[in-house]
Amino acid sequence: MALPSDPSALVAAALDGDRRALARLVSIVEDGRPDAGPMLAAAYPAAGGAYRVGITGAPGAGKSTLTDGLIGALRAAGDAVAVLAVDPTSPFSGGAVLGDRVRMQDHVSDDGVYIRSMASRGHLGGLSAAAPKALALLDAAGFPWLLIETVGVGQDEVEITEAADTTIVVVTPGWGDGIQAAKAGILEIGDVFVVNKADRPGLRDTVSDLKTMLQLGGERPWKPPIVETVAAEGAGIEDVREAIATHRRHLEETGGLADGRRRRRIGELEGALAAEYRRRAGIAVAAASGGGLVEAVARGEADPWSAALRMLDAGGPPAR
Amino acid sequence: MALPSDPSALVAAALDGDRRALARLVSIVEDGRPDAGPMLAAAYPAAGGAYRVGITGAPGAGKSTLTDGLIGALRAAGDAVAVLAVDPTSPFSGGAVLGDRVRMQDHVSDDGVYIRSMASRGHLGGLSAAAPKALALLDAAGFPWLLIETVGVGQDEVEITEAADTTIVVVTPGWGDGIQAAKAGILEIGDVFVVNKADRPGLRDTVSDLKTMLQLGGERPWKPPIVETVAAEGAGIEDVREAIATHRRHLEETGGLADGRRRRRIGELEGALAAEYRRRAGIAVAAASGGGLVEAVARGEADPWSAALRMLDAGGPPAR
Repeated sequence: MALPSDPSALVAAALDGDRRALARLVSIVEDGRPDAGPMLAAAYPAAGGAYRVGITGAPGAGKSTLTDGLIGALRAAGDAVAVLAVDPTSPFSGGAVLGDRVRMQDHVSDDGVYIRSMASRGHLGGLSAAAPKALALLDAAGFPWLLIETVGVGQDEVEITEAADTTIVVVTPGWGDGIQAAKAGILEIGDVFVVNKADRPGLRDTVSDLKTMLQLGGERPWKPPIVETVAAEGAGIEDVREAIATHRRHLEETGGLADGRRRRRIGELEGALAAEYRRRAGIAVAAASGGGLVEAVARGEADPWSAALRMLDAGGPPAR
Repeated sequence: MALPSDPSALVAAALDGDRRALARLVSIVEDGRPDAGPMLAAAYPAAGGAYRVGITGAPGAGKSTLTDGLIGALRAAGDAVAVLAVDPTSPFSGGAVLGDRVRMQDHVSDDGVYIRSMASRGHLGGLSAAAPKALALLDAAGFPWLLIETVGVGQDEVEITEAADTTIVVVTPGWGDGIQAAKAGILEIGDVFVVNKADRPGLRDTVSDLKTMLQLGGERPWKPPIVETVAAEGAGIEDVREAIATHRRHLEETGGLADGRRRRRIGELEGALAAEYRRRAGIAVAAASGGGLVEAVARGEADPWSAALRMLDAGGPPAR
């Protein structure tokens, strides 16, 4: 059957469980089509029911395998699951470098599972600018669980924390051998730590190293549990699901869930404002290109920072 | 002797070779003090003479040791060198997680060497927002060489390319064992590849792996050389210096140097505009907090993206 071409009919179909309509809607938003805004606004009121779990960690830690295991566990409990897998953009192909998504394809024929890959355009390894919008759509489509998987490097570690209610950091034995600086960012963001490939040598050192570093962070209302898994064999997956549930209860009981979601939405608003400003700044610079001030900056004759203030104060906001 | 307290006298002293005045100036800019803008604007016309070399790579690859070797080689050739080392911010301490800077301290008594560490606040592992300003100051202070060292993860790989004329990517033998996706970003940005710790097993595989991946990128005007070093023993450092010089000649002869610097300055202007916009956006959201639209977004009743457009179109630019 053909998809509805009318925007509001397409949105209605997507919210009514039509997976092809949902896929189309996510594509429209990802491509930044002009009609994306109204469609997103139409779908948005249906969102808010999903619980979001972020899954991050170094390449090769087994994030996809763990995600696959969680899909199975949540499906076994009767819940529908949507997955947003954000992959680094290849500088050569321009497209997403797909990781180990093969296993997840087992779920393709299951209508209670929806899996979407997204390239992190302009954010090497980070969340795509379109990701928060796609998550709102998946939420509105009625999935009670959203799993967000990203490669954990740099900036996106922070972004996934902001996007998720519970953030899982996946490491492997031997991870403790790296330098401290590389670990600091990851320790800050994890609500649950998973040591995957726990059948490999070095497990005990890694777990005790993690414990020590978490204790250095001082007393906090939530003490992140450390769960050992061999995701490829399904071992420990139930423990991860239980750890997520425990963290969720903690957030619900302390009011942290509502607070975190308020902060997330305010952050999305600030991000949306800044993105729109940045777009208009690009238009303003392009429009003024060859003009006095921009050319002076390009030649190194005026410093960019005071030039920016002068442009803003002189011209008001760049046109839409 | 006391530093001049008058802003223009402080700038004059810094440009005249007073290293303590320069250090003070960089601190003022890094801290974002209100008088930083005029001081930066006053120093900026003296900038433009420095050649910028970015040095990035995974933690433990030996970037600091290589940087130290390059300092020695450039000093031996009679040139002054400034180093900006951008370190990840520790989420626990709030300060910079200093890497292996011990060796570099050998140069502390040499007035022809200036070394500065900077925390990458708000950019885990990436360049600090203050870094481009600090680089402009070091440039204005008359150093013919600026070395910019960052931990190479994610977004900062792109940022360092934009900040540098020549970008050096440092890897070690065994690096080729990771998954392709993790390498793609690094391959795109390197003008010179250094395989450090070349006395370790796996050198040949890593070099041939690098060559293959670079060839996959297709024909390009500049073919990045692969240089083998054992930086801790000083081996290969002269080859790195020669590779930088060759790339510099290539850029000068093809006009790529001037083009790249124009692009960099325009990028700095756009970044400055966007940063100022973001600052004003934060102010606008804070000012409107509790007001109808922001509160509706916080409650999940209005979507952040159309709310942002409505705020912009209704209110004009947020106040300064």
